[in-house]
Amino acid sequence: MTLPSRGFPKAEFQARTRRAQGLMAENNLGALLLTTEAEVRYYTGFLTRFWESPTRPWFVVLPASGDPIAVIPSIGAHLMRQTWITDIRTWQAPDYIDDGIALLVSTLIETTGAGDRIGIADQMESSLRMPLADFRRLEQMVAPRKITSDCAITRRLRLVKSDAELAKIKTATAIADRAFDRVPEIAQVGVPLAQVFRDFQRLCLEEGADWVPYLAGGADQGGYGDVISPATDAPLALGDVLMLDTGLVWDGYFCDFDRNFSIGPPDATVTTAHAQLIEATQIAFDMARSDAVISDLFHAMNKRVNPQAAGSDAGRLGHGLGMQLTEWPSIIASDHTPLVPGMVLTLEPGITLPNGQIMVHEENIVVTDAAPLWLSTPQPAAIRMI
Amino acid sequence: MTLPSRGFPKAEFQARTRRAQGLMAENNLGALLLTTEAEVRYYTGFLTRFWESPTRPWFVVLPASGDPIAVIPSIGAHLMRQTWITDIRTWQAPDYIDDGIALLVSTLIETTGAGDRIGIADQMESSLRMPLADFRRLEQMVAPRKITSDCAITRRLRLVKSDAELAKIKTATAIADRAFDRVPEIAQVGVPLAQVFRDFQRLCLEEGADWVPYLAGGADQGGYGDVISPATDAPLALGDVLMLDTGLVWDGYFCDFDRNFSIGPPDATVTTAHAQLIEATQIAFDMARSDAVISDLFHAMNKRVNPQAAGSDAGRLGHGLGMQLTEWPSIIASDHTPLVPGMVLTLEPGITLPNGQIMVHEENIVVTDAAPLWLSTPQPAAIRMI
Repeated sequence: MTLPSRGFPKAEFQARTRRAQGLMAENNLGALLLTTEAEVRYYTGFLTRFWESPTRPWFVVLPASGDPIAVIPSIGAHLMRQTWITDIRTWQAPDYIDDGIALLVSTLIETTGAGDRIGIADQMESSLRMPLADFRRLEQMVAPRKITSDCAITRRLRLVKSDAELAKIKTATAIADRAFDRVPEIAQVGVPLAQVFRDFQRLCLEEGADWVPYLAGGADQGGYGDVISPATDAPLALGDVLMLDTGLVWDGYFCDFDRNFSIGPPDATVTTAHAQLIEATQIAFDMARSDAVISDLFHAMNKRVNPQAAGSDAGRLGHGLGMQLTEWPSIIASDHTPLVPGMVLTLEPGITLPNGQIMVHEENIVVTDAAPLWLSTPQPAAIRMI
Repeated sequence: MTLPSRGFPKAEFQARTRRAQGLMAENNLGALLLTTEAEVRYYTGFLTRFWESPTRPWFVVLPASGDPIAVIPSIGAHLMRQTWITDIRTWQAPDYIDDGIALLVSTLIETTGAGDRIGIADQMESSLRMPLADFRRLEQMVAPRKITSDCAITRRLRLVKSDAELAKIKTATAIADRAFDRVPEIAQVGVPLAQVFRDFQRLCLEEGADWVPYLAGGADQGGYGDVISPATDAPLALGDVLMLDTGLVWDGYFCDFDRNFSIGPPDATVTTAHAQLIEATQIAFDMARSDAVISDLFHAMNKRVNPQAAGSDAGRLGHGLGMQLTEWPSIIASDHTPLVPGMVLTLEPGITLPNGQIMVHEENIVVTDAAPLWLSTPQPAAIRMI
């Protein structure tokens, strides 16, 4: 497989910045303050696994005009200098007296007027990646400037993927496709589920994943209990349904889909449930055009897999996907977001079986200006058998 | 290797809860509100990689007496029921109208008095893992109760590891030790660094890691530029110093240490630098007894590797370790935390070479009531050669 090039041309970061600045003007925001990995990376290209360390806060200020300004711990300066960002302000973190707040305040004061509103992500799926006490101090120190909602500007931009972003997601899904095809190498009767999990991550790496941030799943007789558990040491048994759900990363972009495997021949209930899940997925795929809204996909799938009820424990039947394992929007009845070309979605119907177990199927697709495209390889009605 | 058992006995979670409640009483707190993965897991045992999804908030309320109460999305109920927690309150998330806030408010009002203070982690290394707009709404809805600092109660408890926690960290370090010993299998002249990174993660899994949340490093002539970069496709060359720094996990506990490798014979500068790093590590190890404070370790190492300056870009020369890749405290001049038995530390001296490159060495140790113990295997003065 030919891999796309890593990173993005500077023009893509500039375009993201200018689009954000256009929305900032519309929403009367004098600056955006970014604190999370995905936000910082979206505008700067700063890609590192070092966010795994919770010690240090990282800030980017996106002013009303001009390029983003990085206000970061000095340990990150060398890597940030390799991005397109030129205004990089650092402090030696951790600093128990002032962990970057004075530097951030002076940057915000320099780039905004006293009456300005400074936007920060505050809506669903966002979080504040800095100490709350420092945030409260920051609010006081930038006054009379007001820190307020970013009006979901970054979330709105990230909803639509560029061709370069799609190429990375497509690479990630292709890697996972190949790893799933090799599951019969690692999953046999008697193998502990924890070993299957370890080996599956190895397969993902062998097939080209940069890393494997997410793997969940389950294995039990005729279904499984949930889809978020870590593996136990229980050995695979005949009659188990094994499900593996992976979010692996290539160049900072995720796939997120699963595969179900019957250990030995599936019984009739499992056979039927899997076929229903595949059918529900196909129905939603066929509808995923720009004349639809997200709730249309929910109702179409839910009618097929869950005709009696309005929802399930999972709470949704799919979601956005890209720089994060799960992104806006959620495929639920109350989401009326119109589908637009470049939107990447997971379709993830789930079904509860008569024995109380569940089964979930998941594929990744992209909306285009015509028919949608599969990113993962769509599966036949018959469950894979090992 | 015999593995310790997974999880913890219920008594350990009860003891953590009672200790927290003792400190809450001392600090006049009517409840703790927990929002982050490590905090929730510390008191409940709820272990899942599903936190990788930023969509849903998760809450635990720790009342002044009695057991913790989980206020969580219904997708997590099945897994939470497998912990010792019995009071589990759920909502179907994501909910665009009210994503758990009403349920959380009613739980807080039920478990506290109107005049109570509710503690939340707000200090360094903490963050607020919920949407800021929801937090602001929460503050208003629980009034006259006040949401205030948790007085670092959870951080203070987590600073000292139990024997069961130590066994997990020791297991993680032993796995990484074995993986580092196999690096000559995967790192040769001409192999792209990105391939070395992928293969090293595979080795970690083969040696028993549950997963590999963190891998960073570098490879360049006579040192490297930083220690947080992802790998490039540049091939290893004679004269490179290759450094791999991993945080792998076993049963929810991390190791965090690195190894340096010279590709071909090291030059005199690299040889000397590595020996200095090892010596600095040994000096700090010898001092790591309960009559010392953290800054003693900093000054001892800094004097050896950085005699001219007060600090470096890294900002510190080691840190705590456990449920997270990096934990409190930081080995810096201004940290005067007394060492106590059960404290797990990384010793991580770094050195800047005459060519402008850096080299960093790292080991993991535990403080006891006598001499400290190595968790990772201490290295000889000579750099490993491939």
